Amino acid sequence: MYFEGSEKKAEIVIDGSQLSLLHDITDDFWASLVECCNAQILSNISNDSCKAFLLSESSLFVWQDRLLILTCGVTQLVKSVEYFIQQLGTDKILQVTYQRKNEYFAHEQASCFGDDIKCLSQYVQGKALRFGELDSHHNYVFHQDNDFVASVEDKTYELLAYQISSEASKVLTTPNLSAAQIREFLAIDALLPDFIIDDYVFKPFGYSLNAIKGEQYLTIHVTPQEDSSYVSFESNLNLVKLAPQILAVLSPASFDLITFNALDLAELLQAHIPEQYVSQSLVSQQLSNGYYVGFANFIKPQRIFYDAKEIDISGDNHAL
Amino acid sequence: MYFEGSEKKAEIVIDGSQLSLLHDITDDFWASLVECCNAQILSNISNDSCKAFLLSESSLFVWQDRLLILTCGVTQLVKSVEYFIQQLGTDKILQVTYQRKNEYFAHEQASCFGDDIKCLSQYVQGKALRFGELDSHHNYVFHQDNDFVASVEDKTYELLAYQISSEASKVLTTPNLSAAQIREFLAIDALLPDFIIDDYVFKPFGYSLNAIKGEQYLTIHVTPQEDSSYVSFESNLNLVKLAPQILAVLSPASFDLITFNALDLAELLQAHIPEQYVSQSLVSQQLSNGYYVGFANFIKPQRIFYDAKEIDISGDNHAL
Repeated sequence: MYFEGSEKKAEIVIDGSQLSLLHDITDDFWASLVECCNAQILSNISNDSCKAFLLSESSLFVWQDRLLILTCGVTQLVKSVEYFIQQLGTDKILQVTYQRKNEYFAHEQASCFGDDIKCLSQYVQGKALRFGELDSHHNYVFHQDNDFVASVEDKTYELLAYQISSEASKVLTTPNLSAAQIREFLAIDALLPDFIIDDYVFKPFGYSLNAIKGEQYLTIHVTPQEDSSYVSFESNLNLVKLAPQILAVLSPASFDLITFNALDLAELLQAHIPEQYVSQSLVSQQLSNGYYVGFANFIKPQRIFYDAKEIDISGDNHAL
Repeated sequence: MYFEGSEKKAEIVIDGSQLSLLHDITDDFWASLVECCNAQILSNISNDSCKAFLLSESSLFVWQDRLLILTCGVTQLVKSVEYFIQQLGTDKILQVTYQRKNEYFAHEQASCFGDDIKCLSQYVQGKALRFGELDSHHNYVFHQDNDFVASVEDKTYELLAYQISSEASKVLTTPNLSAAQIREFLAIDALLPDFIIDDYVFKPFGYSLNAIKGEQYLTIHVTPQEDSSYVSFESNLNLVKLAPQILAVLSPASFDLITFNALDLAELLQAHIPEQYVSQSLVSQQLSNGYYVGFANFIKPQRIFYDAKEIDISGDNHAL
């Protein structure tokens, strides 16, 4: 069974003097927005700064003046972004950033990044960039090109782990695993002390977690099945510093780091990435919207030959 | 401008006592077969053992009792294989092998590997395997599962080079480059002494070469444009031994080796792959049809950060 874990991601910053996304917008609006990309809200948690929705396909975070939404599978996130722009109008919007990671099963998607930016360009003028090479892990970023300039303190970190170890995959695909057992395996208590946590175990597999503490947030999404396993972390906590802990648990064959305004990325990588990983891609770019974006893909070199993967040809194999 | 260089490949072995593909089949038949996947024959060369057709999208080689066809772009090679099976009948066919490399632009393809093996399974019982991980370079192989057993002397080597150096890309995208200039750049004379050569320079870019000498063959296909560059070599010459020469010219960021019956693959890699490359995947498998298939992907680790790639968002970007 294959599932496309790779997320599409959008961040929208609005003019907080005109509107509060936290107080002036109803949950019904968010439910409608999420439905536009064929996802549903499962639950939510909140504090004074943030409301975090757990979705059937990933997560939505809403702050006073911004929202962050990540969706996976074959969801068409661009439709939710379009809905938001149409409902609120472009005059309240300061900045739209839309990201898409290359997918495992690109041919299964309803649209490609080129289609998505064509849609967004109807509403906002923007620029698009690709971080990473076409024949390996890469990440597309579209961002509105206007006079908005992000604070250098506005930092975001993503850690995307591919092909986690057989052991980790086995644990995370154990039948009837509880959320508490998954939190323990991922060492969430050590990673996120004193956070409010909302999590969900999908059937037959899969796990999502949202965590908030003041302005801080972290979200984790686990597609654990061996052969197409994928675990994503996104946070404004410094995930490069936390990488050794995360990599020790999951031991992925490959992982990406995507950072916004991690100005010290080169030094961070030097200090925190375990030596058994080598960098396949190292890309950085200052965007006109104030974000300094970094992208790094690391792999664990193979030393010994292993067997090919047999494919069941009895049924439909549209994912291949 | 993006072009999908990655080839699909089919090899069909027939019962030579019933029919000679070289003498009993007309060129019109091959033209029709090639048209089934939306390619055309451009030219051909031959000797006593082999007839080699240069195609608008790659190559077709015909021997007494076997054919090899490679097609790139958005060709649907499985349609040509289906045509061959339908025209000749399965009773004359001893073995069908069908391969597909993961594509840069998978969503542009008319079918996926799963669709293709569903089509082939209507005619021949087979098995399918994947060599390499889903999130990195990988190669699908479908093969007929019957009493056919290939000779261990039936060896094939593929070397697929991705992201060739800027210098190589610049040379190979020079306007009005002649075939002779490309042969000189690729050091063909040293690589293929005394071969009969047929080659073609595409407009605005691109180059294909077929070379034969007795039973020996080599084919090269070049998609030179920087950012999506790809150069493939396929031969029954030992391309692992020739890798140092090829890599010195192209200096790709990444390359794959796919071998059939290279029983000494591990030793070959050890002896011939330059030290600056590290192995991301190392896969080998003995197939029931007698082929020992190896797959290795190598990358050149990045040491320094480079800029993101700007994307022109003015037009359609269906390839992204």
